[in-house]
Amino acid sequence: MKYGIALFPSKKLQDLANSYRKRYDTHYALVPPHLTLKTPFEAEDNEIEVVAKELREIAEATKPLHISIKKVSSFSPVNNVIYFKVEPTDELKSLHEKLHTGSLAGQPEYAFVPHITIGQNLSDDEHSDVLGSLKMLDIHHEEVIDRFHLLYQLENGSWTVHETFLLGKENE
Amino acid sequence: MKYGIALFPSKKLQDLANSYRKRYDTHYALVPPHLTLKTPFEAEDNEIEVVAKELREIAEATKPLHISIKKVSSFSPVNNVIYFKVEPTDELKSLHEKLHTGSLAGQPEYAFVPHITIGQNLSDDEHSDVLGSLKMLDIHHEEVIDRFHLLYQLENGSWTVHETFLLGKENE
Repeated sequence: MKYGIALFPSKKLQDLANSYRKRYDTHYALVPPHLTLKTPFEAEDNEIEVVAKELREIAEATKPLHISIKKVSSFSPVNNVIYFKVEPTDELKSLHEKLHTGSLAGQPEYAFVPHITIGQNLSDDEHSDVLGSLKMLDIHHEEVIDRFHLLYQLENGSWTVHETFLLGKENE
Repeated sequence: MKYGIALFPSKKLQDLANSYRKRYDTHYALVPPHLTLKTPFEAEDNEIEVVAKELREIAEATKPLHISIKKVSSFSPVNNVIYFKVEPTDELKSLHEKLHTGSLAGQPEYAFVPHITIGQNLSDDEHSDVLGSLKMLDIHHEEVIDRFHLLYQLENGSWTVHETFLLGKENE
């Protein structure tokens, strides 16, 4: 089964992201707006229980994350993904690293650029138009995220949450 | 914010449900296939933390649930919802009751008929046609579900998971 690990930002930021995703993101209906911490990986049912146990330990040892968004950016020319750029703090980088060690070992596919996708699979012309207008948006958003999620992918491409991990508190 | 509580069945059953939902369920893109344990309710951010704490306690005191599906049914003539009927076990009823006491008190809107929706908002004619053909399906599905989820609704009508609650084990 294919799994991934992500942060969901606040409802407010998800609603804002969706106002763009609705028009510009072909994955709009497949998953809520999110910040990917670990790109999709394969795991069997028995393996994922080991992974989940490690994730509980990682979450307990991680403080809630402060995230800050100041601009819209794009991965062009690598690909036409438009996103809210999330400032790469030491805390985020450290969590990302922990999610690529132990039973989760493996080089990430790309360097870690924390982001929340708001557009993808646009033609070059459309990408350029949309990016031009979104770059002019005056975005300043700050929030604290206190959990991350392990998700799995269904056959239709959509994602279901397997488990939530609360940051920095022992689960009572 | 609007919250709800649901079980997600296994990927296998979600994939099967989606093969019908894709054609017959207007909520297909809004939430993965699920069994609703508590219909949508309003709660403020500070209230939901109290609710989450209670849900952790309820989950710890609840054993994993065995669910059994033997047929497709419909809520017609009340409404044109077609669903996988889940056998109403004492365990399911007990969990449903616990989710309507304490800070979660409040009469459920309907009597509890455990089900996984696969079609809704169909015209009377279409409902009748689809139900007729789905009733002939030979469905026999059994599985054990070991977690439930608290979700919240975004402005576009879709649902994001707030927290997962594991049944019957102390979170390590």
